[in-house]
Amino acid sequence: MTKQDFFSRTRFIMVGTSHPGNVGSAARAIKTMGFKELVLAAPQKENMLSHPEALALASGAVDILENAQVVESLEQALAPVTLSFALTARTRDMGPPVVDIRQAAEEAHQHLLSTPYAQIAIILGPERIGLDNAQISHCHRICHIPANPEYSSLNVAQALQLAAWELRYAFMKEQEAVEGENRLLEGQASKQKHYASQDKVEALLTHWEQALIHIDFLNPAHPKKLMPRMRYWFNRSQLTQEEVDMMRGVCTQILKR
Amino acid sequence: MTKQDFFSRTRFIMVGTSHPGNVGSAARAIKTMGFKELVLAAPQKENMLSHPEALALASGAVDILENAQVVESLEQALAPVTLSFALTARTRDMGPPVVDIRQAAEEAHQHLLSTPYAQIAIILGPERIGLDNAQISHCHRICHIPANPEYSSLNVAQALQLAAWELRYAFMKEQEAVEGENRLLEGQASKQKHYASQDKVEALLTHWEQALIHIDFLNPAHPKKLMPRMRYWFNRSQLTQEEVDMMRGVCTQILKR
Repeated sequence: MTKQDFFSRTRFIMVGTSHPGNVGSAARAIKTMGFKELVLAAPQKENMLSHPEALALASGAVDILENAQVVESLEQALAPVTLSFALTARTRDMGPPVVDIRQAAEEAHQHLLSTPYAQIAIILGPERIGLDNAQISHCHRICHIPANPEYSSLNVAQALQLAAWELRYAFMKEQEAVEGENRLLEGQASKQKHYASQDKVEALLTHWEQALIHIDFLNPAHPKKLMPRMRYWFNRSQLTQEEVDMMRGVCTQILKR
Repeated sequence: MTKQDFFSRTRFIMVGTSHPGNVGSAARAIKTMGFKELVLAAPQKENMLSHPEALALASGAVDILENAQVVESLEQALAPVTLSFALTARTRDMGPPVVDIRQAAEEAHQHLLSTPYAQIAIILGPERIGLDNAQISHCHRICHIPANPEYSSLNVAQALQLAAWELRYAFMKEQEAVEGENRLLEGQASKQKHYASQDKVEALLTHWEQALIHIDFLNPAHPKKLMPRMRYWFNRSQLTQEEVDMMRGVCTQILKR
């Protein structure tokens, strides 16, 4: 596991973006900070990645656009991700824990260090409206940029630039120390934690919901906030694949009866 | 001496700038991060501060342009400054000591703390060519942004944005720590997040074990490590009393059937 590896296990997800220029600027910010992976979830235009404005603002980072993925939903974009940060100015009552981008970068760094299966994501919402509650509930953390409260007018590409910078700095810090720790980790390869990716946790939540309906705990006609609460708990505790498998076993047993 | 005071004792100096759009973007970045003071030294155009492109890109930060100074030389711009950082990608054989922008921000913070007469400056060079040797020799530090060596294409406004962010974070750190604690206390009071006590979690684990036995998921004769794993997960996620109650409800429903 090298430092370079941290950069390739990081993706930037833009949700519902409407301005191609922002996508181009984002690509440039991603490349400037040494990252590679851009994913557009449900963009507002079809030709976002090849739009002349995107190409113009990407400047020398057109390769980031060429290799970017477009998917239909945030869930799809999060599928392989094990720790995700929603960049938003808002806080939510039942939302994930709140960190600032410096804390997020440090947590991301520790997470990537802990196992080679870890993969992180920074999620940016649509221009103007930002991420909604449902989108935020799919993420592990709410991530703030503590700008001037009287004028916090950062656009989506600027916010991405600051987040990418913080990640880069965290990943590069004490590189020697990091490499030393890696050698240590390699020695403990068998103990490495295998965090569940987001698609596995989603599949578990679907299975768990079926089980709760089966035992008449959850009434699909009046679901209340049961599943959002379950999701909040599951995401907060960052499940390992082993724990997901265990709970899938519980669901299967419940549904058998 | 208040935190606000640090922000008003910081100036951003743009030397030999030729594109009004960059001046507008710089004004916006300055205001977003809570700063006020922009100085143009020997700009390439006369009407730089009132140019339509500058005004358009400044967006809500036109007041920064209105209050900006224009002077003839870097020396004049540096006149009241006690510690100055030249943002440049180059190093010089006989140049000032080199720091990165994080180190610069920390040094700036310490310097402003040390006396109320201290005043710092961030200096940005002309587009394309950057600061020359003579200009750099007027500054106390060379300040690097360690971007991707294969593509370090940050424009002057983006570089200013990152420097302003680093300064803001350094200046706010102490204050944030205090305010963060207050928010935490307030949050606990208003939301009454009620963490479950250990005895409640233990009671839930006992109930959950009965439910798992009931559905034949757990064989009491060969329990393996199932319950220790469940305990590890439950404890790690620091359950609220509400979540414990919810899971007790699940157990009750399972055992009913």
